[in-house]
Amino acid sequence: MVESVGDNVVEVKEGDIVIPFFHPNCEECWDCKSKESNICSKFPFGGLGMPRDGTSRFTDSKGEVVHNFIKVSSFIEYTVVDICNLVKINPDFPLDKACLLSCGVPTGIGAAWKTAKVKKGSTVAIFGLGAIGLAVAEGARISGAAKIIGVDLNPEKFKIGRKFGVTDFINPKDCGNRPVNEVIKEMTDGGADYCFECVGLASLMNLAFTSCRNGSGKTIVLGVEMNGTPLTLGCYELLKGKTITGSIFGGIKPKTDIPLLAQSYIDKELHLDDFITHEVNFEDINRAFDLLIQGKSLRCIIWMAR
Amino acid sequence: MVESVGDNVVEVKEGDIVIPFFHPNCEECWDCKSKESNICSKFPFGGLGMPRDGTSRFTDSKGEVVHNFIKVSSFIEYTVVDICNLVKINPDFPLDKACLLSCGVPTGIGAAWKTAKVKKGSTVAIFGLGAIGLAVAEGARISGAAKIIGVDLNPEKFKIGRKFGVTDFINPKDCGNRPVNEVIKEMTDGGADYCFECVGLASLMNLAFTSCRNGSGKTIVLGVEMNGTPLTLGCYELLKGKTITGSIFGGIKPKTDIPLLAQSYIDKELHLDDFITHEVNFEDINRAFDLLIQGKSLRCIIWMAR
Repeated sequence: MVESVGDNVVEVKEGDIVIPFFHPNCEECWDCKSKESNICSKFPFGGLGMPRDGTSRFTDSKGEVVHNFIKVSSFIEYTVVDICNLVKINPDFPLDKACLLSCGVPTGIGAAWKTAKVKKGSTVAIFGLGAIGLAVAEGARISGAAKIIGVDLNPEKFKIGRKFGVTDFINPKDCGNRPVNEVIKEMTDGGADYCFECVGLASLMNLAFTSCRNGSGKTIVLGVEMNGTPLTLGCYELLKGKTITGSIFGGIKPKTDIPLLAQSYIDKELHLDDFITHEVNFEDINRAFDLLIQGKSLRCIIWMAR
Repeated sequence: MVESVGDNVVEVKEGDIVIPFFHPNCEECWDCKSKESNICSKFPFGGLGMPRDGTSRFTDSKGEVVHNFIKVSSFIEYTVVDICNLVKINPDFPLDKACLLSCGVPTGIGAAWKTAKVKKGSTVAIFGLGAIGLAVAEGARISGAAKIIGVDLNPEKFKIGRKFGVTDFINPKDCGNRPVNEVIKEMTDGGADYCFECVGLASLMNLAFTSCRNGSGKTIVLGVEMNGTPLTLGCYELLKGKTITGSIFGGIKPKTDIPLLAQSYIDKELHLDDFITHEVNFEDINRAFDLLIQGKSLRCIIWMAR
């Protein structure tokens, strides 16, 4: 909720319900005006400080300057955010779930909805069923995909995945000597229309690419390669009319798309509640990280005070 | 021209003007019916013999079976072609130029028109200005691209390129220490909307990818990597919302698109004449290959008899 606004801010006012987001959206540059890009060229992602002047609004207890964490600094009771990192949503949206629309969940939904533009009746394979992969499934479900195959080494993920639209499950451990891409090709009559890499492993990006249908298959990479290994693609595989696309924030244009997602939840189309597996108070924030690392939580709400 | 037809062939008749093509198009399978794919799944490309039964219609002087060369065998006065490798065109199309529509030129035009779907006012960079790259330029010109940058080590290519719509030229030898992708980014205010690799070098595919605009840039690979080297992409570069697509026959669906290209030439929209730089009689066919390897010809017409 907006506590106060600075000079020249007209888009939001005191008392508005807003969502802060890490991915700038100035709405003025070529990219923000384009339907195809969600990478603001006026305020490039990264760098320290407030986007317009590089200054900070925070100091620590010794008076030293403290910079925003990726423009938002949301582990805090009061923050200062540039208007290009903030959007107003319908006040009917429940506040205890609003934080879900700020990063990971829209990234997955958007990858299916905005980047891949999943078509009705299509086939989808999702590599990695963490919260991002499950959000891809939710986006694919809403887009009308006929078959949503989840691929994960953890057999418990299929039960969870069903809540978000996963229709079929592959555990690579159960495939014996059969390569996962061959299993997917058999399940989809030649290859999935859309493959999503949601782990962050170059080898898995390659596997996703080779699991796609010749002629029209699209692979969308959401994961950030953890080891810095480059992605390697066989050129003959590429020649088969396949596409690979990277995506940041799932192609979401925050100012226009986050309010649409909020409305979709209010209209009971979008499922969000099942993403929240844990809630902890701020003093237990490290437990939230532990749960995440252990693969036990999807999203964990951090309460500043309750 | 059709000399005779076999049983059950109704699509063409004796005397029709037709174009044979290497890339099957059955018009019955999922892919042929889809708007997105041009890779026929009923008759996969490759393999010996006629597509339906693997037999051959040719024997050599000793009576030994001789198979079609990529389904068409066009270095011949009379050939036998499956109907899925043949399309009728407007008989007003000049026969001495018809062979241009069979392979390389549609590959380049199609890559701009069908695979990339180049938009009016956009920026294009083409790596390699052989006949394929120049055909990409022609496709981009017809699609209304505002800036078409040709990249080639041969300075003579710019003069030729201008005939096909190339507006700007980069010779990497003249860039000094400046990487070509930086030069392109400067010329296009952040990166080209579309980059086309028309040589067949994995390193050049990577250069094309890094020359594309963040957020919406598309790289289309037409070249077949000559050394078998896989394509390597930095995962962080991929994350910037860029797309890379491979394309065979430029995404052209031969049965529907070749007649459109023929009509476009008749209507004086499409430029084809300047692709023909040489014409030789059949007995000099090896000279045609020499000219191609030496980079002296674009397309060389082989006359069976004249």
